[in-house]
Amino acid sequence: MSNSLFAPRSVAIIGASQSPGKVGHALLHNLIKGGFQGQIVPVNPKADELLGLPCYRTLLDYDNPVDLSVIAVPTRFVKDAVQQSIDAKAKGIIVITAGFKEVDQAGAELEAEITDLCRSRGVRLMGPNCLGLINTEHQLNASFATQLPAPGAVSVISQSGALCTAILDWAESRHLGLAKLISVGNKADLNEIDFLKALADDDQTKVIIGYLESISSGDRFIKVAESVARKKPVVILKAGASKAGGKAASSHTGSLVGTDLAYGAAFVRAGVIRAVAFEGLLDYAKALAMQPLPRGDRVAIITNAGGPGIMAADAVELSGMHVAVLERATARALKAKLPAAASVGNPIDVLGDADPERYAAALNAAQEDDSVDAIVVLLTPQAMTNPTETAHAIAKTLRGEKPVLAAFMGGKEVLPGRDELVTYGLPDYPSPERAVAALKAMVDYSTWKRRPPRVVTRFPVNRRRVERILSRYDRLGQTQVGEVDAKEILRAYDFHVPAGRLVKDVDRAVEVAQQIGFPVAMKIVSPDIIHKSDMGGVKLNLATIGEVADAFDLMTLRIGRQLPQARIHGVYLEKMASRGVEVIIGMTRDLQFGPMLMFGLGGIFVEVMKDVTFHLAPITADEALQMLRATKSYAMLEGVRGREKVDLSAIAGGLQRISQLVSDFEQITELDINPFIVGAEHTEPVVADARITLSAREPNHD
Amino acid sequence: MSNSLFAPRSVAIIGASQSPGKVGHALLHNLIKGGFQGQIVPVNPKADELLGLPCYRTLLDYDNPVDLSVIAVPTRFVKDAVQQSIDAKAKGIIVITAGFKEVDQAGAELEAEITDLCRSRGVRLMGPNCLGLINTEHQLNASFATQLPAPGAVSVISQSGALCTAILDWAESRHLGLAKLISVGNKADLNEIDFLKALADDDQTKVIIGYLESISSGDRFIKVAESVARKKPVVILKAGASKAGGKAASSHTGSLVGTDLAYGAAFVRAGVIRAVAFEGLLDYAKALAMQPLPRGDRVAIITNAGGPGIMAADAVELSGMHVAVLERATARALKAKLPAAASVGNPIDVLGDADPERYAAALNAAQEDDSVDAIVVLLTPQAMTNPTETAHAIAKTLRGEKPVLAAFMGGKEVLPGRDELVTYGLPDYPSPERAVAALKAMVDYSTWKRRPPRVVTRFPVNRRRVERILSRYDRLGQTQVGEVDAKEILRAYDFHVPAGRLVKDVDRAVEVAQQIGFPVAMKIVSPDIIHKSDMGGVKLNLATIGEVADAFDLMTLRIGRQLPQARIHGVYLEKMASRGVEVIIGMTRDLQFGPMLMFGLGGIFVEVMKDVTFHLAPITADEALQMLRATKSYAMLEGVRGREKVDLSAIAGGLQRISQLVSDFEQITELDINPFIVGAEHTEPVVADARITLSAREPNHD
Repeated sequence: MSNSLFAPRSVAIIGASQSPGKVGHALLHNLIKGGFQGQIVPVNPKADELLGLPCYRTLLDYDNPVDLSVIAVPTRFVKDAVQQSIDAKAKGIIVITAGFKEVDQAGAELEAEITDLCRSRGVRLMGPNCLGLINTEHQLNASFATQLPAPGAVSVISQSGALCTAILDWAESRHLGLAKLISVGNKADLNEIDFLKALADDDQTKVIIGYLESISSGDRFIKVAESVARKKPVVILKAGASKAGGKAASSHTGSLVGTDLAYGAAFVRAGVIRAVAFEGLLDYAKALAMQPLPRGDRVAIITNAGGPGIMAADAVELSGMHVAVLERATARALKAKLPAAASVGNPIDVLGDADPERYAAALNAAQEDDSVDAIVVLLTPQAMTNPTETAHAIAKTLRGEKPVLAAFMGGKEVLPGRDELVTYGLPDYPSPERAVAALKAMVDYSTWKRRPPRVVTRFPVNRRRVERILSRYDRLGQTQVGEVDAKEILRAYDFHVPAGRLVKDVDRAVEVAQQIGFPVAMKIVSPDIIHKSDMGGVKLNLATIGEVADAFDLMTLRIGRQLPQARIHGVYLEKMASRGVEVIIGMTRDLQFGPMLMFGLGGIFVEVMKDVTFHLAPITADEALQMLRATKSYAMLEGVRGREKVDLSAIAGGLQRISQLVSDFEQITELDINPFIVGAEHTEPVVADARITLSAREPNHD
Repeated sequence: MSNSLFAPRSVAIIGASQSPGKVGHALLHNLIKGGFQGQIVPVNPKADELLGLPCYRTLLDYDNPVDLSVIAVPTRFVKDAVQQSIDAKAKGIIVITAGFKEVDQAGAELEAEITDLCRSRGVRLMGPNCLGLINTEHQLNASFATQLPAPGAVSVISQSGALCTAILDWAESRHLGLAKLISVGNKADLNEIDFLKALADDDQTKVIIGYLESISSGDRFIKVAESVARKKPVVILKAGASKAGGKAASSHTGSLVGTDLAYGAAFVRAGVIRAVAFEGLLDYAKALAMQPLPRGDRVAIITNAGGPGIMAADAVELSGMHVAVLERATARALKAKLPAAASVGNPIDVLGDADPERYAAALNAAQEDDSVDAIVVLLTPQAMTNPTETAHAIAKTLRGEKPVLAAFMGGKEVLPGRDELVTYGLPDYPSPERAVAALKAMVDYSTWKRRPPRVVTRFPVNRRRVERILSRYDRLGQTQVGEVDAKEILRAYDFHVPAGRLVKDVDRAVEVAQQIGFPVAMKIVSPDIIHKSDMGGVKLNLATIGEVADAFDLMTLRIGRQLPQARIHGVYLEKMASRGVEVIIGMTRDLQFGPMLMFGLGGIFVEVMKDVTFHLAPITADEALQMLRATKSYAMLEGVRGREKVDLSAIAGGLQRISQLVSDFEQITELDINPFIVGAEHTEPVVADARITLSAREPNHD
């Protein structure tokens, strides 16, 4: 794909036009003005010559093959133009024209036809409904955006064409070079995943930034993004977060899972840096493109004014990074070079009258200091300040081992200095807080990159047993797996389930209770009753034969009265679980990203405090422990107020086994173990209750 | 104060200098260049003429009185210059010179001498160690900042001189006019509170922004800021938040209160808008200075691109505001004016080729719509976009009834449009998120301004009884008030305390238990034992005579063995409190802002989840209820999972009575009711345990 699109030797513009203001004119004009060195082939039935180039009535009139065809004819002529392009041996086609899937059903059908046409001939299609493509390396501006940016290290993938124009305009005014700019449009054929792959192998691209409203395939996205992120940073702004939560899932876990959570989990897994605002996208890209990654999160701050230094320190601590404690040697070195009134702590205050040399001295000392991982340089325009010379001095002092980010605060006075910074490959920010936020993105990415290899444990399990149970549900067309079978399934995946048996009459109940030992619990078993306890279908802590007999008779009598239609399979009688901390572990299957595991402390912690964490399956032991640690109530597990510490690895093991189960069986759409009762270290946690939902055989279009 | 400082008829510069680069030169130069119309009196013993003005050896050589004297001589000559100024009848003095309190003890002493000198003669002193003062209304630049900004509606108070220069530079490049700029320096005499008061009465000032690292008096700050905020918005960036938490308070409540929390509570009370980052300070000021306050939080979004519209909608919802649901009439009006493909929902998408007229039509419709409180207009620079004409069209359409904020995204292409916006009094932002954040600040301020009048209830209480108890502690020099006396004090403020009595021997214990009725609780009473239960000094739920006798004997025996030195006053025997929800209500006295009330659900909610809220005393009933609602665990109080709703107003009443108690008795530095047991509605909550700490008679300098 990349060659025909990114480095074509010849480009046709079908729908090239003479009238300024028309897209077909802008495309041709931009391609010429950009300095594209290959062949440019304008196609327009009504012209012989366009902007000084010979123009063809159809592409077939042009005798040589073209690599790339850019189409900007009215919607109803697009299919023909695509056919022409294919016949002219184009390997890549960009359809700029709008009026397809984004408009109506007819448009969607036309889009599908064109896509099929391209695919059947092995031609890659970009768009439709896009701004086009820019590759500065080849001076290729195959877009209707006027500006061909300077060459640089940042490539852009955007699902919004308009945002491309804003980014181009911003990049130009901040002197940031771009490598490729890709407006993906309707993603009929080529989508963000294809372009991520292409950019991963593009030497010119050091950082990829993306604006996305949707992702074409969650599964593939994670796999591709993860392998791309191992090579180079990927920063994505995912818009539409606030629309989440509309999913009216009936189950407990489901009610806490919004799509945006799944995106968040996917980005964390894949090492994608998430920007939450437009400026963050560009701010992070700048730092990642220009500076080395930090090895840790200890930040030195250099400033010519106290106030901004405090602001930066606040931002560093608030973000979770650390204001570095400088080594003594650093203080000594600084004392030797700076005036007596300067602060040689951190922030290092080089004072209001600081000249460029003082900045250089401070930067040198901070680069030298082994307890500093990253450096933020602040400047305010005071009477003696020379922003340009200071930028120059900073640049000369740079060693390239630790990231240095600069915030020159102000307007016109500091702008020449900021421009100078960029020239030297130093990312510049208008405020301390924005520099620190960019640094935090670098630290997070660096941490992800240096993480230990992911090893997903596979436990020996009785997979066949689960297959048998689930195929029975499949035969019967049932989707709700109640407690008894859910526990059977979990037992096959090596969960500890209390001893228990289904009983159908009171004598058998008493007999089983005596076999498994008191106290026991009794729960009604019926495919028609989901919320057992609400119906009086649960009795706990029955300690004697008499209590068991009473409970059985009362339960069956009352439920029979209340729900005469309900099919009652009997009563499940089991040994009471021993006491411990109640947690919930569960899973919902996200439409995009597949099984998402959930963890939280039981009861009010989940229901009132919403203190739950999520992670995409498959999960490693370390990731499972991270899920526990990420809850606010984690201290409860570690033991507070004289409580004993619970067996954390047992919970992690439970999450890992659920991860394996739901990966093995794609028909499981939801699973809840609630509560999962966890005891002290080296004890076995117990599944006290569990529920599983299966996908319906007919896909559900709700 | 304001006249001599802000509108002097004559200004002396003591230490005016001929040498460019010297502060004394900059001051004189700026004053002349700024176009100040009054008399300028340079003072320098070595010059007869400076920058074309007659120069005086001392100010006494100048025969007329001066209103304002600006001093920039070396530190050791400052006192003499102050004396000269006073003798020359100056009413205001600005000491620019540094080298005082901020340097060492000698400097602090000199600063105090100068301050006393000024105060004894009724002269107001600004600084020392400051940048000076600017008043654009009088073309007065009495500072060493080069730029005299354009006149405008925003005034700046800053504790960092360097930040003033950054703000001036930024304001100039973004065409934002300023009214006054005040660099408060060391605040030896005049401080941020004085200037807040002065700016409240300044007709030129519509918005006050402040950068503060400290506040001179918490109490006065709240009173003044609240009365100022009623007239005009006050936006403050308080730096140093991350340093909070260093206070190693031993008590439970104290450990959760950082100074920054108190600042937060003070700002909320006073209606001060808090900026958390440098850009916020300026972004909020712009919106507040230029646009009317919104009446609600329903936001309409107008955009020429889908992506930025989604970004804005995300930001609106994330901030807690609402994306307005447009009226049907609006959709009809929009349909009539916009192309068929335009989206007439919200965001209103006027499409990529939108001309200024389309923006005007959309803005008109949104202004017309009664379900819209505020409008955000977004623009990206697409092929057909004309940012300047669009800005013009928006401005012409403005009705001034609802706030309109604009985000023109990009760089050079949109900058002329952004400049045009500012000219028309439309606040402009580089991204949707920043426009939305500024709007949120407006909404919060508007809500505060429209809040009902604060009525602090005064309950009939037995104040004399508390006076007697506390004077006993004062006489004995004791600061820890244990459970028995703390409950007495609370009883006097109408708290319900279980019946109980101090007993000294086992027979009396049994007798009292029979009188008050079983079950009872018993707790050791000793000034030397703070954590009673850790020492085995608490027994609960004693149900029989035998249990009471056993508990008494065992408790006294064992504590006598463990702590033979402890003074034992006896055992407190009381009726067990009935069951209910355990909450904590308490107070710590902040050094700056006085009594800060705390509320949280008991046990793990406070200790593990840190789910507590704070409010400064005195508190109203409504504010107390807001404290409850602001906890994450609020649903627990409202009743979840079949629990009964507790008496919310009873908790609020408890907070109000604590508020009254700690306002009445300033020597109470900490107070904790833990637990405060709350039952169903219309039941009386019970103080199950309580502790009070008093200030030591000698102030504690820890």
